Amino acid sequence: MKGKNLYISTLLDFYGDILTDRQREAIDFYYNKDLSLAEIAEQYSISRQGVRDSIKRGEAQLLNMEERLGLVAHFRDVHSGLDTIIRAAKELELMNSRQFNSSELLEKIQLIRETAEELSN
Amino acid sequence: MKGKNLYISTLLDFYGDILTDRQREAIDFYYNKDLSLAEIAEQYSISRQGVRDSIKRGEAQLLNMEERLGLVAHFRDVHSGLDTIIRAAKELELMNSRQFNSSELLEKIQLIRETAEELSN
Repeated sequence: MKGKNLYISTLLDFYGDILTDRQREAIDFYYNKDLSLAEIAEQYSISRQGVRDSIKRGEAQLLNMEERLGLVAHFRDVHSGLDTIIRAAKELELMNSRQFNSSELLEKIQLIRETAEELSN
Repeated sequence: MKGKNLYISTLLDFYGDILTDRQREAIDFYYNKDLSLAEIAEQYSISRQGVRDSIKRGEAQLLNMEERLGLVAHFRDVHSGLDTIIRAAKELELMNSRQFNSSELLEKIQLIRETAEELSN
């Protein structure tokens, strides 16, 4: 899953709970589970066009929420910063094991790495 | 500003853009700028009861959004984790200046601290 599809899927994670059950499920089936419009239509006993409308309306709401709130963009910044921290902590661990061999140093570095990894999940 | 007031103010930061202009402004006047209902009513030329209703409806929407999306709770976890990282990085800086005096070590630690501080703002 790439580009726009992945983006819609991320928006669904964040804002899915504001959609109707039908919209949320249809988008989940279509973008996450890769079902065709025809397959989803069969599940609901509605037309392909009905499914397409549900998805389009749901997508528009998700995009509108992000435009208003910008939380996905903010979370991406946070995750990119956490990656920087995790990488630097790993390099510090390596430096410690090669040069300093300090268990006190290692303990603090590990606290940093583990905290950043936890927040990243 | 404490307790519930601070919480509503935080919810307004996150979800304010989904409210009507009137609701958002009324909550901002009331919780952030500490205006009385009577003062806000005067601004809008409506009744105090009208202002109270606007605020109550807006508050209910903010609380409902948080119940559905839980983003404020998540952000609080992230900030508490970043505080842990910043504190540990400061302790590492101190250890480095006292024991190791390594510019390479210091550089990585500062990268961690500055990244975490930036994300915290």
